[in-house]
Amino acid sequence: MRPHHDGSELYVSDPAPTLGDTVSVFVRVPRGTGVSRVHMRWVRDGEPIFSSLKVDRRTGGDTWWRGDVTAHNPVTRYRFLLGTTAGVRWLTGLGLTAHDVPDSTDFRLVAQPSAPSWARDAVVYQIFPDRYARSPAADLRDTPDWAIRATSWDEPVTPGPDAVRVLYGGDLDGIARRLDHVTALGADTLYLTPFFEARSNHRYDAAGFDRVDPLLGGDRALERLSSAARERGLRLIGDLTTNHTGAAHPWFAERPDFYYPGVFWLGEPSLPKLNWASAELRREFRAIVRRWLSQPYGLSGWRVDVANMTARHGADDWNHEVAAMLREALLEARPDGLLLAEHGHDATGDLDRDGWHGTMNYAGFTRPVWSWLRADHVPFDGFLGQPEDLPSTGAESLVATMSAFASQMSWRSWESSWSLLGSHDTARIRTVVGDADRQHVAAGLLFTLPGTPMVFAGDEIGLTGGGNESARVPMPWNRPWDTTTLTRYQELIALRKASPALRRGGLRWVHADGDALLFRRESAEQSVLVLASRNPAGRIKAAGLMPGTTLENLYGGAPPLHIESDGSTAIDASGPAVQVWALP
Amino acid sequence: MRPHHDGSELYVSDPAPTLGDTVSVFVRVPRGTGVSRVHMRWVRDGEPIFSSLKVDRRTGGDTWWRGDVTAHNPVTRYRFLLGTTAGVRWLTGLGLTAHDVPDSTDFRLVAQPSAPSWARDAVVYQIFPDRYARSPAADLRDTPDWAIRATSWDEPVTPGPDAVRVLYGGDLDGIARRLDHVTALGADTLYLTPFFEARSNHRYDAAGFDRVDPLLGGDRALERLSSAARERGLRLIGDLTTNHTGAAHPWFAERPDFYYPGVFWLGEPSLPKLNWASAELRREFRAIVRRWLSQPYGLSGWRVDVANMTARHGADDWNHEVAAMLREALLEARPDGLLLAEHGHDATGDLDRDGWHGTMNYAGFTRPVWSWLRADHVPFDGFLGQPEDLPSTGAESLVATMSAFASQMSWRSWESSWSLLGSHDTARIRTVVGDADRQHVAAGLLFTLPGTPMVFAGDEIGLTGGGNESARVPMPWNRPWDTTTLTRYQELIALRKASPALRRGGLRWVHADGDALLFRRESAEQSVLVLASRNPAGRIKAAGLMPGTTLENLYGGAPPLHIESDGSTAIDASGPAVQVWALP
Repeated sequence: MRPHHDGSELYVSDPAPTLGDTVSVFVRVPRGTGVSRVHMRWVRDGEPIFSSLKVDRRTGGDTWWRGDVTAHNPVTRYRFLLGTTAGVRWLTGLGLTAHDVPDSTDFRLVAQPSAPSWARDAVVYQIFPDRYARSPAADLRDTPDWAIRATSWDEPVTPGPDAVRVLYGGDLDGIARRLDHVTALGADTLYLTPFFEARSNHRYDAAGFDRVDPLLGGDRALERLSSAARERGLRLIGDLTTNHTGAAHPWFAERPDFYYPGVFWLGEPSLPKLNWASAELRREFRAIVRRWLSQPYGLSGWRVDVANMTARHGADDWNHEVAAMLREALLEARPDGLLLAEHGHDATGDLDRDGWHGTMNYAGFTRPVWSWLRADHVPFDGFLGQPEDLPSTGAESLVATMSAFASQMSWRSWESSWSLLGSHDTARIRTVVGDADRQHVAAGLLFTLPGTPMVFAGDEIGLTGGGNESARVPMPWNRPWDTTTLTRYQELIALRKASPALRRGGLRWVHADGDALLFRRESAEQSVLVLASRNPAGRIKAAGLMPGTTLENLYGGAPPLHIESDGSTAIDASGPAVQVWALP
Repeated sequence: MRPHHDGSELYVSDPAPTLGDTVSVFVRVPRGTGVSRVHMRWVRDGEPIFSSLKVDRRTGGDTWWRGDVTAHNPVTRYRFLLGTTAGVRWLTGLGLTAHDVPDSTDFRLVAQPSAPSWARDAVVYQIFPDRYARSPAADLRDTPDWAIRATSWDEPVTPGPDAVRVLYGGDLDGIARRLDHVTALGADTLYLTPFFEARSNHRYDAAGFDRVDPLLGGDRALERLSSAARERGLRLIGDLTTNHTGAAHPWFAERPDFYYPGVFWLGEPSLPKLNWASAELRREFRAIVRRWLSQPYGLSGWRVDVANMTARHGADDWNHEVAAMLREALLEARPDGLLLAEHGHDATGDLDRDGWHGTMNYAGFTRPVWSWLRADHVPFDGFLGQPEDLPSTGAESLVATMSAFASQMSWRSWESSWSLLGSHDTARIRTVVGDADRQHVAAGLLFTLPGTPMVFAGDEIGLTGGGNESARVPMPWNRPWDTTTLTRYQELIALRKASPALRRGGLRWVHADGDALLFRRESAEQSVLVLASRNPAGRIKAAGLMPGTTLENLYGGAPPLHIESDGSTAIDASGPAVQVWALP
């Protein structure tokens, strides 16, 4: 193991200080790494300040060095300088470097309240309401003028220009009737894609924000769902589109000052872009944010659609202001509310402020997992509109990509961002990886790496789909499921729920090469060792363990690991597999 | 050579577009690199947009692919995705990567006017007025209460707590009398450290901004210097402290609202920190900026002291606003004015807006050059306050560090930032590298790499000094000089002045390993190949050249290079040496 620091509880005494607080930070230096001096550089009002760390304690083979950082600025960046027998080394979020690197990968202390505790421990289940479940009332509703009725719930989804008009008729009471499935899975938070009235089955073209689409059962159905969810200890998160509305929104006719004339989301004329210069628009959204978080609806937070583009147009950029304003409104209504941003590429520049608590981590999680686990042939093009075939890369690339993104945000932003294997906007993970065993490895990463796991409903039973529209498959309640996959998801979720290390622990990569990946998750209460392998990868040596101990297997069924007197052990990486062992 | 793009004129049709302009960008793909497709990703209002490039032309062995980017936002980021026989690769400011990387190293199109043209072609000569030259009038001036008179101009500088009080008595008329030396060197811009009245010899503790220190000859002396400089085609740049004033400034007694109570620069009670919340303070500075740029003083710009901390304190951060305001005031007085920020570490986050045109590039130039060329033993501690001995690294580390910093700013910000081998705040380059031949290599890099060269007066004659105070050595007009070094500086400056490639060309690294460094600078008019080696490094192979041609030597005295039929040549890297050849 190499000298290490991250933003988790073992290394930072307070991840959410108040401005001006002093926080202790620790560097863990394993024996044999030749480190004799540790300095810290933190940046105060734009100027680097150096100080020297002192040895705080020794545990096992590790020396823990301690220093103090003042949360002097809203975001205070820090890094370490190690004097080693091989020369000096910087330790930043990217690990050790022998040459100088810019501040962008410095560790960050953020003087803001963190995301709510429940959200950091959550397992989120994403439901696309038209496709989850129908209540009996759904059969009685008229088909609106924009819609094409699916002939049956089991009609295959057909991609194409009309796909967004095909109505399967799922509704909120349908969801309420299926909460046992969610509970059995072990998820605790339902994220519903938009429920406001619109002119498409996805409803991202809101025709209003003040009532639930009658096609979904209206406001009362949301009340009923909310109440049923609360009874089971489940939370609800809504989906708010702040970048644009549908052209059918009355604002578009009545409030031209709310829009950029002639500007639409990606040129789509049904989605006119909002202009946040309007103070009145801001007031409207404050009220919307608050209303649905209050009783009787009681949402626990919002996922914000197209957050990356919101309030950005040409020379205008109020994104940060708007995010901060939305968070303020949210916390007024609900002090434990969550504000989670959609962001399809690099969100790091928009985090660690007083706006979004986290993002959907497509760039730093989904894509590297896809690239590592993809099938030889995948029947879809690119990833979120990106040209060229999805690359097929080794585990070392997965680590490089995850580290590159994680190093440019605070640990708490990483932890509070949603890890996902897919969503209504992508292909299904099963189709990406090709079979149940590789999906198991993908799910293994989802539930054991930092980040809040989000499951797109249906993934847990092995649904397939080769593009965003094809992936919006109605939940096949009356057809056979892949119960092997469901059991694996249930067990992995149970493992995570029971494991402080998996939910809150730090991360140390142990091995990453081609077919296999080995890492540690370590919290104050518990430490675990996780193996993920996509193919049989022979025997992998793990070092730096406690000599003479035995590591009990917690997941995956491998035998216990006996640690040799030199602190090493050989691990049989028979893949595709996920194994988790307890570290003493 | 590998596929390449940078922000120079060969690759970008307009580096300073107006918002909304479309700019053509080019990727240069050498033969044999296996690239068959080139895509571009640019970010518009926060959302990535992909497009495909087309082959524009073929020259020599290179295929030039062309695409269009719209300068849609004030800073528009873009990168390329290459389809190659080895898989897809991103091309960002850091070069090619097989794994995904965040946006921080994307290329940048900045929709703002560039730094003035003269500044991008300048060679800057830094003068610390107390130590450059005395006029006869200097002998007649009283010693102020804070000062200790040096017994003679040639008295050695003694570091210590009193060092800032020792007055050697250099003045502006002294400088005016020595302009022939500046002209003979080839520099064209004088940067004077502060000339306002103060209570130290460095004068960064301004006691006012409305008159030139009488110890320097007062306002009239600045007029005379300005006029003498103008006659020789030399420009003057002043030094403005915006983070703090001296405690002797009348504001400190009269305008408590201009300061943060009890807050000082790095805790030094003589330097109270300004609070830019005050609109009145902003008005004062606007007037100061303008006044000295106007006649009869006619400064061409300001170097801004402690720009990195200016207007930053705790939760307050008006740095960007203040920089933009200073630039606006500067341009009102002088449309071709320059605003250059002091910044001791990573300035990249403060560039590419409408504030600073560039910074002093200590982090991305000085330190990597020092680390590559440092002597075995250096008689000083650290670098700008950094603990641990200055690392000794190979040329590959120099390239890694320079690239890491350059990749996080626009090309034009790099080009407009000041490269320096040292300043009044550091040890002298001669002391860092130990001898004249290694200083020659350092100077070779200073005058051939991107960035505006700044020479700290005295470096060109081989002065030594092992710390910032020890480096503030009076210019030894009446003692022997290292004329070999002076001739080398003169010739390197003349080379740069005559070379469009060295002033405005792009940069392609060819070889970097241990003792030797080889790179190309290439503009529309001219291309050159530069070798820098710190030790004899044997023969280096350069490839990708025009078969059958001969490269004439432009600097350094090496024989012409004959290019073999496979486009390669072996270069004799006998170091310490600098060699420059013309490419056809």
